[in-house]
Amino acid sequence: MSAQWAEDGASYAVIFTSRLRTADPAYEDMAEKMLALATAQPGFVSFESARDDGGLGISVSYWRDRDSLLAWRRDTEHLLAQKLGREQWYAHYRVRVARVERDYEWGYDASQLETDHARG
Amino acid sequence: MSAQWAEDGASYAVIFTSRLRTADPAYEDMAEKMLALATAQPGFVSFESARDDGGLGISVSYWRDRDSLLAWRRDTEHLLAQKLGREQWYAHYRVRVARVERDYEWGYDASQLETDHARG
Repeated sequence: MSAQWAEDGASYAVIFTSRLRTADPAYEDMAEKMLALATAQPGFVSFESARDDGGLGISVSYWRDRDSLLAWRRDTEHLLAQKLGREQWYAHYRVRVARVERDYEWGYDASQLETDHARG
Repeated sequence: MSAQWAEDGASYAVIFTSRLRTADPAYEDMAEKMLALATAQPGFVSFESARDDGGLGISVSYWRDRDSLLAWRRDTEHLLAQKLGREQWYAHYRVRVARVERDYEWGYDASQLETDHARG
């Protein structure tokens, strides 16, 4: 294992876990719009999302530093989307903001080479 | 918003993102067994998981402190399951270990009361 930090350099993760009241295409539209908006923010690194059929959804956005994720938290259009989400779609959500300390991955190249990226 | 830390007191999150080669009930069995084993570990706090149909899966386990998650990383049965996963099921996975700095949630009680738990 090497001791290199992952190349994308994300230092913060925002873990957004949610349950929807009902499936709604309008929610998907909003979520796609917000993702496009987040992607364009300074300091945005990457995004991953999965939702069980009609159940729990987990979305994780990764950010270069704390300032960039704080700026996204304060974005007006994002705040309006959150308000709409609470009014129309979410039954529950929980947000964890976490500082990434280790980042390693396996796969992609079928050689089963394991790489390990650790900071500090 | 209050300034209380979330009651479950998780301070570390392990974000496990994976793609499977193919859907396999044997994988689900192994994942359930590992979850039961993790749940029994000292310092285990909670677990959340979602997988898109045949696509990306995100599982997040939360731990009381760094020592408890390191102990789980070293657990022999867990290590064997990871090896089996690389041999049989995973096309790719990525693991981020992150220290939780903020934790807040909305919902559960239909009163739309927002609670905010922040450490420090």
